[in-house]
Formats: sequence, structure tokens, C-alpha cells
Amino acid sequence: MAALVSHSLAKENNDKASENSTIQVIGGHGTNSYSNNSSCQRLSANVVTKKIEDAIMKNLDVETLSSTSNIFRVADFGCGVGSNTINSMQDLLLIVEKKYISQCPTSSQMPEFQVIFNDQFTNDFNTLFTYLPQDKQYLVASVPGSFHNQVLPKSSLHLAHCSYSLHWLSRLPKELRDERSPAWNKGKIHYTSAPPEVLMAYATQFAEDLDNFLSARGREMVSGGMIVIVGSSIPDGMPYSQVVNGIMYDCMGSILMDMVKTGSISEADVDAFNLPIYACPPGEFIEGVERNGLFSIEVIELMNPAPWLKGPIDIPVFVKHVRAAMEGMFSNHFPSKAIDELFDHLVLKLSDISQQLESCYRDGLQLFAILKRK
Amino acid sequence: MAALVSHSLAKENNDKASENSTIQVIGGHGTNSYSNNSSCQRLSANVVTKKIEDAIMKNLDVETLSSTSNIFRVADFGCGVGSNTINSMQDLLLIVEKKYISQCPTSSQMPEFQVIFNDQFTNDFNTLFTYLPQDKQYLVASVPGSFHNQVLPKSSLHLAHCSYSLHWLSRLPKELRDERSPAWNKGKIHYTSAPPEVLMAYATQFAEDLDNFLSARGREMVSGGMIVIVGSSIPDGMPYSQVVNGIMYDCMGSILMDMVKTGSISEADVDAFNLPIYACPPGEFIEGVERNGLFSIEVIELMNPAPWLKGPIDIPVFVKHVRAAMEGMFSNHFPSKAIDELFDHLVLKLSDISQQLESCYRDGLQLFAILKRK
Repeated sequence: MAALVSHSLAKENNDKASENSTIQVIGGHGTNSYSNNSSCQRLSANVVTKKIEDAIMKNLDVETLSSTSNIFRVADFGCGVGSNTINSMQDLLLIVEKKYISQCPTSSQMPEFQVIFNDQFTNDFNTLFTYLPQDKQYLVASVPGSFHNQVLPKSSLHLAHCSYSLHWLSRLPKELRDERSPAWNKGKIHYTSAPPEVLMAYATQFAEDLDNFLSARGREMVSGGMIVIVGSSIPDGMPYSQVVNGIMYDCMGSILMDMVKTGSISEADVDAFNLPIYACPPGEFIEGVERNGLFSIEVIELMNPAPWLKGPIDIPVFVKHVRAAMEGMFSNHFPSKAIDELFDHLVLKLSDISQQLESCYRDGLQLFAILKRK
Repeated sequence: MAALVSHSLAKENNDKASENSTIQVIGGHGTNSYSNNSSCQRLSANVVTKKIEDAIMKNLDVETLSSTSNIFRVADFGCGVGSNTINSMQDLLLIVEKKYISQCPTSSQMPEFQVIFNDQFTNDFNTLFTYLPQDKQYLVASVPGSFHNQVLPKSSLHLAHCSYSLHWLSRLPKELRDERSPAWNKGKIHYTSAPPEVLMAYATQFAEDLDNFLSARGREMVSGGMIVIVGSSIPDGMPYSQVVNGIMYDCMGSILMDMVKTGSISEADVDAFNLPIYACPPGEFIEGVERNGLFSIEVIELMNPAPWLKGPIDIPVFVKHVRAAMEGMFSNHFPSKAIDELFDHLVLKLSDISQQLESCYRDGLQLFAILKRK
């Protein structure tokens, strides 16, 4: 079960999320580092690899792409730190090679491959590079900067990958902190169980971010190039309080409010803090892509992010994963002592409601989409 | 005077230099960091900028280059950490823009510019990115890996820059450590004042490295693209013991041998240690470029790296610069306590011979060359 949550929280968590919090995956190789707490994500990646292979074999016209250039560029947007991004990129290269062999069997040589790792300027690229295999058969570059802007030259990219990154909002809507707004999110840290105006503020920001992401990729990608998107989602119309993450955010909010009572933190700090995370339902996603107009949707579906995980949740392991992904957000806003208190209490609080967590909806929480540049 | 030495030692010091020592500029922003001890290099960079401008205005045919691509890529090979590489790249972009305006006055738009920072995998790219201006008008990528190999796609690069990096050998010739070889460098750490076989071993390795560098750039660069090379040199035929750095290496060797006597380090450790630094005279450089055959030499000259620095050397400041650039080499080979001892003694020893240092040859110690891809 840990995989389900770590999936939807970790990876490219370095988006500048608000004026007050810069999300930051814990770099390096330490006990709480993202790189040492993301192995479950690899399992889920394998599940989607077959679907990506099907789409590439069917829809990526490498013959046309190679007619204009002898370089094939693949980029991971929101790569984070660790071996997952490298494994994902290598999987994609193997699939593209297979497509070349299948579509251009008489061609004397493969194009050169360049793998591009994108994430925020604050990402730990130094550590990421230590994960690269010494005998790699491809060129490598890292490209720092928000993927909501253009970060690569025009028409230079052939295949893009974005896994569990789009759910991080580029910024938090101001109205969440505005006492006079109906979207003021008092005493809560997320739109789960919040007034509909709060959900709407999140959804509006996500739609703007998605449009910026697509427009930027639209400039960077060649016609016929494809984007693979994997990320947090939820069935259309389902409230977020029906899923484990939603319940956890509610718990976090309530723990923080308890800490206000004991004086560990101030109420104003809690009111000013909101998690910049939005799980976009497929209907909104389709609407956003169509409104943007630069890409066609080749594949879109909801998947179970971890169908092999059944039964009770190992709460301490689960919270360890959550902490690896989310600590940076909290530590930019609250004093460091409060962070230990929050995550210690989270283990206790989630353990108290472990039966409720087990009955949560778990199936269609992963969006899988493949878009093609028109 | 500090600038002269820091110039020839620092910058892209991360080349894997031998089986035993990986050269590493001190990253981060600390007291001994390279980024805080490289300001003098900027001064020298300004001196060469005018020469680069002259060569680009005269010889870089941006009209032809822009006819095949709407992206103009500039790369710094051996970028190191700090603002010098960013300033150098920005200076180059300004010159290229000027050339575009001059050569293509009727063209409606500039190409997109991408600046590529290359250095070893162990370079502190994280810190480098913190120096990028927020309002930069160019795209950025970092490309890790030895510049003795191809690191960029074929025919993708238009302008290359390599400042004070080529003098770092990719590895140390084995014969320097071979007791049976006439090139065994017993009791010394450099070819200064060593037998001619030692100098020959260094020169041979440099020639191989230069050839690999040129062949790699030859693959990456478009026809008509240019490489600017600035680096350590010495007039043809002059022994290295006539320059400050050579005398300093002799001092370092003799301090280390003194430390053998006091038991701080072992004699075998000193015998096994050699500085992977070679200042190539222009004659050998020209020979190497012509033998490689991929580039024409547009400009080549020896310059004084710091003509504004006259008079006595500020030894403590000088050693501080040296340490910032070289500490990594020593600390990979000797115990950390020995490093402090070495640099403390170096201040004393150089102070004792400060008059000798002042009479050293200082003029033509900087090679400035511009090569053009045939």
C-alpha cells in the first residue's frame, strides 16, 4: 500500500509551490532520502511500461522522425532523484529501439539517443548523476527549470515522460489564504473535506498549470512526438475523502490544529499552509488537453497504481514513504521540531483508523495518458 | 599574482586524473570553495573577451549556421563551479548576438540560444545552477562526463569554450610510478626539475588527451563552428622551473618529502603521487591540432594571463587560491591532517623564496587559441 501513496506524493516534488513553501524531495542517499524510499515505484512503473510499449509500437512514427534528424531525444519532466527516472528512460529507449528495428529494418544505423533529465533548479542533480550506469549507451543532459515553461529548444524533443509530477501545483491560489474569500481554507491543509470553493481554486490552478505544461511541450516537441503522462487521479465526481491520501491530509490538518492547542505552532501558520497537490480527474484532464489544442489524446485511462497490494497497510512504512516525499514542504513552513511531532502523530492517528483506510477506494487512482503532438 | 596561479590550476579540475586521485574543485559556497576564490579569473576573462569578439566578428559565419538550424548552442567544457563560467557564456552570447545583427540585419529574429555546461560527473552542478540569473534569456543544460569523450549529439554545437581545463591530464602515465622506468618520478610530484623522460611521459599523455578532445568536439560541432581555448602554457623550450607554478610544485614535493622524514606520510605515497597538470607549449599544441586534422587554427598566441599584476606576491592569498583549486587532488591521496600541514608549510616555504618568485617568467603563460571546425 505504501507504493500507492509514495507514488502520488513523491517524484519531482521540487516545484515552487507557493510563496512560503518550496517542495523538495530529500536528496542524497540517507535513511529518509527519496532515493532510498522509492523502490515500490519501480514496480508500478513496470506495469505501465507494457502500455507505453503498445502505444509506441502502434503510434510513434520513427521513420518520419528520423528523416529530419539523426538524434532522438527523450526527456523526463520532473525526474526527481534516484534510479527510477533512469530506469524509466532506459525502458523508453529500449522500446524506441525496438520500434526502429521494426519500422526501419533496412536502416543501417540507429539514431543517437540523448536522455534529458528535467526538474526544478533545486533538484539534486549531483546525486542523480551518481545513479547513471557507467556503460550507458546514450548521451545525457540535465535541464533545470520549471516544466511549466519552455526549457528545451524548439522542435528538438521526440518523446517526453512525466510521471507523478503534474499533480504538484506551480503555486497555491491566493484565495486559500484570504479570510474574505469563500475559498479561505481555515484549519485545513488541502481541499479534502473542504468547501467546494476550495476545490474549485485548486482545480483552476491545475488547469492553468496543465495548459502551461502542454504549451511548453508543444514548442519543444517535434510534430508526431509523444508525451507519456502517469500521475495521481481519481474517478470523475469522487470526493477525495474517499481515498487514503485524502484521509491522511485530513489527519495531518487535524494533528497540526492539535499542535496549535499545545502551542507547538500558531493557528495562523496552519491557516496559511496548504498542500499544493491536485489529483486531476480524467474528465478535467481531457478538457484541458482539448482546450490547449496542441496534442491529440492517443490513450487515456484510469489504472490501479498498485493492484498487487491488498490487505492491511503497514502504517509506519507508509508514513516513512510519505515523509520522504513531503517533509520538504512542511519544513519550509513549520519549525523543524514540529515536523517530527507531525509525522510521529501521523503514525498513531492512521493506526487508530487503519480499518477505515482499508476500506478506502484504491482502484482508479492513477491516470495513464499518451498524447501526440499534432 | 594570485590570479596567474589560480587560473592555471582551477576551473574544471574534476578530470579523473589517475587511479588514485580524482581532482575535485571544492564545491558549495564555503571559505575554501572555488566559487569564493575565483574572482581574479574574471579579470583575466575580460582581457580575452575582446580577442574572442574580434575572431567571432571576423570568422564565425552565423548566416550559414542559422540556415540549417534555428537554435544556436554554446558549450563550456570544464565549466567548474561559480559565476565565471556563466559570465563567460553570457559574454559569448552577447558577441554572437552582435554578429547576428551585423551579418543578418534583415533577419526578423534571433535564433534561440542554449548554454551547455559540461564538466565531470562529480562536478557540483547543483551549486552552479544557483549562480544562474533568474531573468536569463537563454536555455540551459548541464552535460556531465569527461570532455575527452563525445558528450553532445553529433553536429549539434556551434560554439565551444574551454578555459583552463585542457591542462588537466585525463590520467597519469603509468611509467611515472614504475621503478624500472626511466620516467619513474621518485621524490617529485611533477615534471618540473625532473628527468626529461618524465616530461616526455606528461607530454605524450597531453597529446593523446588533446587528440581525444578535438575528435570529440569534431563530432559534436557543426562545420564552421568555433572553439575558444584559453589555458596554461609556456614558451616553446622554456623549462617549467622558470615559472612560479613550477617552483611551487618543487616546493610541494620537497615539503612532502620533509613530511616523510617526520613520519606524517610514507615515501611510497609521495613516489606514487604526481600532479596531472601539463602546460602545453604552443608548438606542441599546433602540432596536435594539425595531426588531428578536424580543425583549422584561426588564432593562436601566448598572452600574459595577468599583465596588471606586478610586484611582490601576496603569498597567503596565493596559497589560498592554490588550495581552493588543488586540495581535492591531495586529499584523495594523503590523509586529511597532511593537507593542512602541506599548505601551512607552503606559505612559509614560498615566503622564504619570495624574491626568487618575483623574478620568475610571467609573460607568455596563457595560450589563447581559436579553432574552426573544417
